Amino acid sequence: MKKKRQPRTLAHQSLAFHKEHRGKIETATKVSLKKRTNIALAYTPGVGAVSTYLAKHPEKARDYTFKGNSVAVISDGSAVLGLGNIGPYGAYPVMEGKALIFKQFANIDAVPIVLATQDPEKIIETVLAIAPTFGGINLEDIKAPGCFDIERRLIEALDIPVMHDDQHGTAIVVLAALMNAAKVVKKKLTTLRIVICGAGAAATATAKLLRSAGISDIVLLDRSGALVKSRTDLTAEKRELAELTNPRGVMGSLEEVLLGADVFIGLSGPALLTSDHVKSMAARSIVFALSNPVPEIMPADALRGGAAVVGTGRSDFPNQINNALVFPGIFRGALDKKLTKITTETKLRAAKALASLVARPSAKKIVPDILDKRVVPAVARAVR
Amino acid sequence: MKKKRQPRTLAHQSLAFHKEHRGKIETATKVSLKKRTNIALAYTPGVGAVSTYLAKHPEKARDYTFKGNSVAVISDGSAVLGLGNIGPYGAYPVMEGKALIFKQFANIDAVPIVLATQDPEKIIETVLAIAPTFGGINLEDIKAPGCFDIERRLIEALDIPVMHDDQHGTAIVVLAALMNAAKVVKKKLTTLRIVICGAGAAATATAKLLRSAGISDIVLLDRSGALVKSRTDLTAEKRELAELTNPRGVMGSLEEVLLGADVFIGLSGPALLTSDHVKSMAARSIVFALSNPVPEIMPADALRGGAAVVGTGRSDFPNQINNALVFPGIFRGALDKKLTKITTETKLRAAKALASLVARPSAKKIVPDILDKRVVPAVARAVR
Repeated sequence: MKKKRQPRTLAHQSLAFHKEHRGKIETATKVSLKKRTNIALAYTPGVGAVSTYLAKHPEKARDYTFKGNSVAVISDGSAVLGLGNIGPYGAYPVMEGKALIFKQFANIDAVPIVLATQDPEKIIETVLAIAPTFGGINLEDIKAPGCFDIERRLIEALDIPVMHDDQHGTAIVVLAALMNAAKVVKKKLTTLRIVICGAGAAATATAKLLRSAGISDIVLLDRSGALVKSRTDLTAEKRELAELTNPRGVMGSLEEVLLGADVFIGLSGPALLTSDHVKSMAARSIVFALSNPVPEIMPADALRGGAAVVGTGRSDFPNQINNALVFPGIFRGALDKKLTKITTETKLRAAKALASLVARPSAKKIVPDILDKRVVPAVARAVR
Repeated sequence: MKKKRQPRTLAHQSLAFHKEHRGKIETATKVSLKKRTNIALAYTPGVGAVSTYLAKHPEKARDYTFKGNSVAVISDGSAVLGLGNIGPYGAYPVMEGKALIFKQFANIDAVPIVLATQDPEKIIETVLAIAPTFGGINLEDIKAPGCFDIERRLIEALDIPVMHDDQHGTAIVVLAALMNAAKVVKKKLTTLRIVICGAGAAATATAKLLRSAGISDIVLLDRSGALVKSRTDLTAEKRELAELTNPRGVMGSLEEVLLGADVFIGLSGPALLTSDHVKSMAARSIVFALSNPVPEIMPADALRGGAAVVGTGRSDFPNQINNALVFPGIFRGALDKKLTKITTETKLRAAKALASLVARPSAKKIVPDILDKRVVPAVARAVR
């Protein structure tokens, strides 16, 4: 007759949920050892033949082992959600949540791996060392600018696909959402004036993918204001971004660059946009407030400011513009086709495939539901 | 109406078995995302509360994530079974086989990790880097002498148990088997004259554990003959072994040291012992031919040479003296009790617990069956 105290907030509920289940994933056996002959086949002495075969034909490991359907979800905990640098244990439940999504939505065997180091060189060495184990590498919640070099060098070195999901998963789902939002507000995609708040991993990849989709009027902001060529305080990565974007040479703070903009894309931090900011944007504006768990502006406030379409990264509001719509399908396609790289063409095709799943986009429906069973196959088909 | 060709040998069957199942383990979900509220609890936005909590209380990660019940089975492929240095892909099906055994016998979530490096320093760095992910580290099939330093330094550095199973799993099961074999041949355990063929990882740990159990007359052999203090060609590790063992200062080849020995323990390589060798041993001799998949001598040949008790590592002969009797229980106990180290005392207790499961040892039954459900709980209870 134990009395259970009811947890009250979502935070309490989530803590209780994780503790009750002691995590969210586990391993499972594909074959039973209760049949004694299976021990001889799966373990000694039979396994020796498979070892000998794979030593000679390492490229066949995908067909004979866990490798073929597995993805490592790797984080150093340096940029977790909108929570910042909270280390490997802070990152752990997020990585495990992604592994859960990988399995449930795409039947991919994903393993969360959290690292005791935040040194980019050591991260690269570690991933290179464990890479033979996996069929793909999903980098996650690793801070900029280190993440760019880490991803680039791993892609070059490895024969399995490597994707920093904060960058490309975000970029793909934002482009898909923007394609449909533009239809809802009856504006042309390629001439939208876009402000991206943030200049980190997700913002950089999003700006680049939007450009690849033909959108040119993009302004990014870091904490010091708009990225513009004339600034002398920029890192190499931000300088490159400033040269790729901001064709009108806009300068100044968020307030200044937002004036007359069609689209706000928040990839920065919690609660930095107000209704008044939104009011200063163009008519029929689009607001994607994607910081997690606390968005840049709550949807009700954005609507009050006059936004016509609002999206967040969260599952408890309409228009969940979340990487979870992307990464399961991207890796499903890459594993099935034994791809070694994920190209810009693939990313553009994936965004289009995702957008096309919403037959009649509306203010409350610009992306498919995360539980829509068509999502993973559609994105996976786009990967080739 | 496809015709299937029947595979004929165990090797063919094992290859077909692995290909059919595409490996032996997978991941599984502990919670369903089909309930929409679960997405908010397991992923965004709810997971943020768990991240924040674990960033502040990293020691609680075991209770809230995959970490608490997980073990990494890590190999560089440098000493796989009796097959030698066949690299990470050669090692892969063995590591996955261990993960299968971990799950099926002890409900432990084990992940095979095969490494692209065989440099001990890089192996140490890699394991340190990924260690926050796991509740325990099972090192496997890493060659001597590098394995000694790797294990020692990881044990010192980490707050989770680290065990090189080739060393200690083997040592524990050999001691357990020897306790019962001594009863069968009616000889006293501590005065047995023992020859260990091999001076690598398993042989070293076995010699040390047998000494801790009170056995003093142990002679080890490497390719140049018996380890004896007077030899000038020994590595530091072998010199230490020579000083710990061989109290009679025996010198020479396998033939010479086997004369009159009570016990042969093969931890070396395939097919190096003959019936004539066994005939030269003492009456009622004990032969453990543990090289896998091909033992030092086939059981029928050892019996023909006069051995009273014969064991191998294989599942298709009686007396399977295999680490699989040990590692699931050792890690089950260590995870349940949140141990940080596995001591010599624990190893001795585990061996006794394992031996005691055979109520009336006989020539064909000196260790419990690998499918005996009492094994894992008994070994786990011995871990404290």
